[in-house]
Amino acid sequence: MNLQNDLILRAARGESIERYPVWLMRQAGRILPEYRAVRASLSGFKELVETPERAAEVTIQPVDILGVDAAIIFSDILVVPEAMGLEYQMVEKKGPWFEKTVRSKEQLDLLDKDIDIVDRLSYVTEAIKITNKELNGRVPLIGFAGAPWTIFCYMTEGQGSKTFSESRKILYTNPTLAHELLNRITDVTVQYLKAQIKAGAHMVQVFDSWAGILGTEQYAEFGLKYIEKIASQIDEVPVTLFSKGAYASMEALAALPCNTVGLDWNMDMQTIRNVVGETRTLQGNLDPCALYASHSEVEKRTNNMLDSFKSQRHIVNLGHGVYPDVDPEKVKTFIQTVKSYEIQY
Amino acid sequence: MNLQNDLILRAARGESIERYPVWLMRQAGRILPEYRAVRASLSGFKELVETPERAAEVTIQPVDILGVDAAIIFSDILVVPEAMGLEYQMVEKKGPWFEKTVRSKEQLDLLDKDIDIVDRLSYVTEAIKITNKELNGRVPLIGFAGAPWTIFCYMTEGQGSKTFSESRKILYTNPTLAHELLNRITDVTVQYLKAQIKAGAHMVQVFDSWAGILGTEQYAEFGLKYIEKIASQIDEVPVTLFSKGAYASMEALAALPCNTVGLDWNMDMQTIRNVVGETRTLQGNLDPCALYASHSEVEKRTNNMLDSFKSQRHIVNLGHGVYPDVDPEKVKTFIQTVKSYEIQY
Repeated sequence: MNLQNDLILRAARGESIERYPVWLMRQAGRILPEYRAVRASLSGFKELVETPERAAEVTIQPVDILGVDAAIIFSDILVVPEAMGLEYQMVEKKGPWFEKTVRSKEQLDLLDKDIDIVDRLSYVTEAIKITNKELNGRVPLIGFAGAPWTIFCYMTEGQGSKTFSESRKILYTNPTLAHELLNRITDVTVQYLKAQIKAGAHMVQVFDSWAGILGTEQYAEFGLKYIEKIASQIDEVPVTLFSKGAYASMEALAALPCNTVGLDWNMDMQTIRNVVGETRTLQGNLDPCALYASHSEVEKRTNNMLDSFKSQRHIVNLGHGVYPDVDPEKVKTFIQTVKSYEIQY
Repeated sequence: MNLQNDLILRAARGESIERYPVWLMRQAGRILPEYRAVRASLSGFKELVETPERAAEVTIQPVDILGVDAAIIFSDILVVPEAMGLEYQMVEKKGPWFEKTVRSKEQLDLLDKDIDIVDRLSYVTEAIKITNKELNGRVPLIGFAGAPWTIFCYMTEGQGSKTFSESRKILYTNPTLAHELLNRITDVTVQYLKAQIKAGAHMVQVFDSWAGILGTEQYAEFGLKYIEKIASQIDEVPVTLFSKGAYASMEALAALPCNTVGLDWNMDMQTIRNVVGETRTLQGNLDPCALYASHSEVEKRTNNMLDSFKSQRHIVNLGHGVYPDVDPEKVKTFIQTVKSYEIQY
């Protein structure tokens, strides 16, 4: 099927574009009343993730309602540890919670072996197929997965944490176990991303939400090493790497085989461009809190960001997922401002 | 009273030292069974903070038990917002919680006016006097306060948060209110630190725990500006500034009038030294998780850190508060390793 809008794919590949493409992390979610209506009709977050027709429905909502240049499949990075044998619950107002964790060789051995990840996560690939059918080529569809380090954090800590000290403890007390688990997550993630691409994902993003809690040496050893294993095995579609908070590792991250590097809202676009050069597209990075400001202020700050770009190699996004209490009209102002902006290059 | 061990004061001032001084953030706390015994005999955390004799007792424990080169007064950064009129509770396993928050001019006007902070926080200055009397000059005593930005975060968000989006929202929707509140916090904090110094604190540290959630521009405007106001008014004793996660703002932070800059465990010592030069002492920054490793590994990693130092201008610490489940014997190994290390310069 031909894409009517392939702006984001061209931007990722560094090709010529008429204007900057724009989408938002967490665009399919609680900011939209239409999403909340679907969600309320189901038993909970996980039922939505696991029901392909409904997942497809909320995936498409921001394309229809907000006018973004790409859809991202509605899912969760934690479907991967669950497929490996660690079931999770999404606890209202608290976040994910795992009954079992992996902190020893014995617990690692309890994980399911020789799993058919494509089969276990067929609800995601099915949702991708339905989404593409219903999108009918209007915009590309982004697939995604968590980076091994972030998945490792949840599998070892068992829940969110300010310090992830249980996860980081293992790096000191049993690095062999850490590498074993990271390797297993990596293998499964490569298969999962390839299945998403085969099902129709036009590009993929790897999210390393907890990159920022490691120093550069440990992030190289336990984070980047495994992202590289993934990125080097995906050559079918453009790859985006987003390592939140990894300020000091951006040069090393951008050196991995990828098309696009995501910036969080604390990273200075020009500083990162100087470090990365023109070999990669940069994605981001308006502060999600900027969308709490007035419409004119949102427009001004968005234009300021666009003015700071010095080339075509940009995909516009926020520097973090959009916050659930943001007014969708402000999101529209953000998107419209990007769409009206005339590229200087 | 003459100090028998003034190593940390000399290190802060860049004077000659025989060996590197060492202490730990959160050294007076849950790692010590002796602390937990005192804590269990009282109704809760706040009673301990507000009872000078007991606060002094737990302040001195790590000097006796661990052999650190400085005591830090046992207290909490949230005594300041409480003195301003926002009472807080310390909820077990959840952290601080404020019933009232300040998100509007009306709520700002509800804060107590013309408060006598020295009187309201006399339990802290009293604890400082008792501590010094009982320490009898063995080691210096460190006073401290939260940085205005971090206190602002708690007063506006009302509790801990991963994103502090309520706090950051105000920077976009009502910067005037933000500056008004930050100014009030700053004024009170200066008076509070001066009272601690008058009571006997030999040096002071300003903790900006949430520095890392702002980009460099916003941190300059809403963070550093107020730290500078504080630092420029304290010239009685050495001042340490610790802005956790402010990787991109370290040069600007070190340019403020202070003696010492703290590094979190993710910051590379050599990189920061290159940025800061020899005009400031650097404090830190072993990863607190390194203390989960074996004794020989703790020794090795501590020595590696010490080997990376290229001058005398260092105070050894962790890069974050010591985690509560760390074995005190590992802390002793850390401290002993520092004490046995021969300075090369």
